[in-house]
Amino acid sequence: MTENLGTTKMNYYAAIEAGGTKFNCALIRDDQHIVKQTRIATTTPEQTLNQVVDFFQPLQAQYTIESLGLACFGPICLDKQAENYGGITTTPKPHWANTPISRQLSKRLNLPVFFDSDVNGAALGEYLWGAAQQTNVAVYVTIGTGLGGGIIVNGQILHGLHHPEMGHMLIPSSVEQGHCPFHGGCLEGLASGTSMGKLWQQPTQTLDDTHEAWQLQADHVASFCHNLLVTLAPEKIILGGGVMQKSSLLTMIIEATQTKLANYLNLGRPMQEIIVEPALDQASGLLGALALAQGKGRHGIGLK
Amino acid sequence: MTENLGTTKMNYYAAIEAGGTKFNCALIRDDQHIVKQTRIATTTPEQTLNQVVDFFQPLQAQYTIESLGLACFGPICLDKQAENYGGITTTPKPHWANTPISRQLSKRLNLPVFFDSDVNGAALGEYLWGAAQQTNVAVYVTIGTGLGGGIIVNGQILHGLHHPEMGHMLIPSSVEQGHCPFHGGCLEGLASGTSMGKLWQQPTQTLDDTHEAWQLQADHVASFCHNLLVTLAPEKIILGGGVMQKSSLLTMIIEATQTKLANYLNLGRPMQEIIVEPALDQASGLLGALALAQGKGRHGIGLK
Repeated sequence: MTENLGTTKMNYYAAIEAGGTKFNCALIRDDQHIVKQTRIATTTPEQTLNQVVDFFQPLQAQYTIESLGLACFGPICLDKQAENYGGITTTPKPHWANTPISRQLSKRLNLPVFFDSDVNGAALGEYLWGAAQQTNVAVYVTIGTGLGGGIIVNGQILHGLHHPEMGHMLIPSSVEQGHCPFHGGCLEGLASGTSMGKLWQQPTQTLDDTHEAWQLQADHVASFCHNLLVTLAPEKIILGGGVMQKSSLLTMIIEATQTKLANYLNLGRPMQEIIVEPALDQASGLLGALALAQGKGRHGIGLK
Repeated sequence: MTENLGTTKMNYYAAIEAGGTKFNCALIRDDQHIVKQTRIATTTPEQTLNQVVDFFQPLQAQYTIESLGLACFGPICLDKQAENYGGITTTPKPHWANTPISRQLSKRLNLPVFFDSDVNGAALGEYLWGAAQQTNVAVYVTIGTGLGGGIIVNGQILHGLHHPEMGHMLIPSSVEQGHCPFHGGCLEGLASGTSMGKLWQQPTQTLDDTHEAWQLQADHVASFCHNLLVTLAPEKIILGGGVMQKSSLLTMIIEATQTKLANYLNLGRPMQEIIVEPALDQASGLLGALALAQGKGRHGIGLK
């Protein structure tokens, strides 16, 4: 779209993909061009948010920034009536529980802040510009330290009583004892990177390609995909996150899902067109934050 | 709404809740008043549809019927490009596979026919006039001979690659061998009325109130509710169907779901406000067919 630059006014947005390890911050143009980007370690709210402000404030002197989009680790409060609307709630992440992150950033940067969960943001990014374009129903799942997902229905982030968690789905497993402190062997307690590490008593990234851990992992994630297919029937299930970097895992999941479904559903297309990797690579969350900043979500504070 | 009768023109619609056992047919007014109703046994397509036509044709002489709404047992084809759009596809119900039911009724009654699955219809009925009013996300599930459900998101029936089935969700269970021909111990193979009967080797309706079958049934359905809550977070999960007629089963399911969730989710309201019985009693499907006839679904043929 750069050919339109001469005639079309471009807007600029602040975007943050706020994760438990790092805050990925960028100034992004309407056309998804990243003007400037930085990564800030997630330490304490005071330290991290100070660095976020220090990154964006000088840019505000140079550019008219319309708003800030925040795709945030959570749980994040999406209850408009709540005092902590837009804030992080009960996270186990040290220092961050009950942090009114959206209000603080809105006040310090004097910007409207539009927010949602990190995975909802990533799902929206993939819907607008990635693997989930033109779908009626799409799911984005990250399998990393934790396991969570977001759902897009008819172009909108799905919100019921809270934002979807997805990780805590109950599935059949041959494992006797999972590692979720709430549910033991729910998906999160079996298939997150953290839980895999505990199951096999070694860090997930040190499990070699032929380790039996991967077939078990494929089986667990395939049960999850099976359950999504029989309930939501999404056109796309996008699997991202660190654990999915393992080559051949995606293929194993696709095969295991087909085996489980046993041709029960007539999906009208091959499974490898449904269960896919993110098309935006590592940028799903950041571009999702851009989409939120552009008002394509439904939660915000400090609106003009 | 009868007080408006003098000033407001009322429209009349033909509505059919087409089930595997009977076709529930009615002439219904805009204000949900049922003018005339009949039940026709589901035998062969020829015989049953002849009786349906014989019921509606005389009414067409008396009333201007706008359209026919059909909430139909399935699977029903919802692919607009398919030759069998609006037809029953691969049902195991004898005689009914590949029946172009919507086209036949449209042609014989000379009416536009709006259709969807029976449970999607019931979900829409409950959304408009029953237990799911003013929800963002609601699920209607019937647990009877089979087990299936529909989802309403932002007032619309959810459709992805196909209509949701929901019954075939994989859940943990202590039962070694379930009775789904495709998946063995999926929810359908454990908790439908048919599967319960096979598990306990006696008809479900003869299991007395103290039989251990009911606690196991509550446990299975609670895993399903747990999984819906962590994925879709619906404001309402409406449990209908013959098996749910068992007194105290609903309460047992609510308690088992709470136990399983282990306070992980902050739902902001008691579980008995979320997991509920249908508010329209036996009429969810028929009123859902009215809603379809009124154009509140998204599938139809022979449109004016």
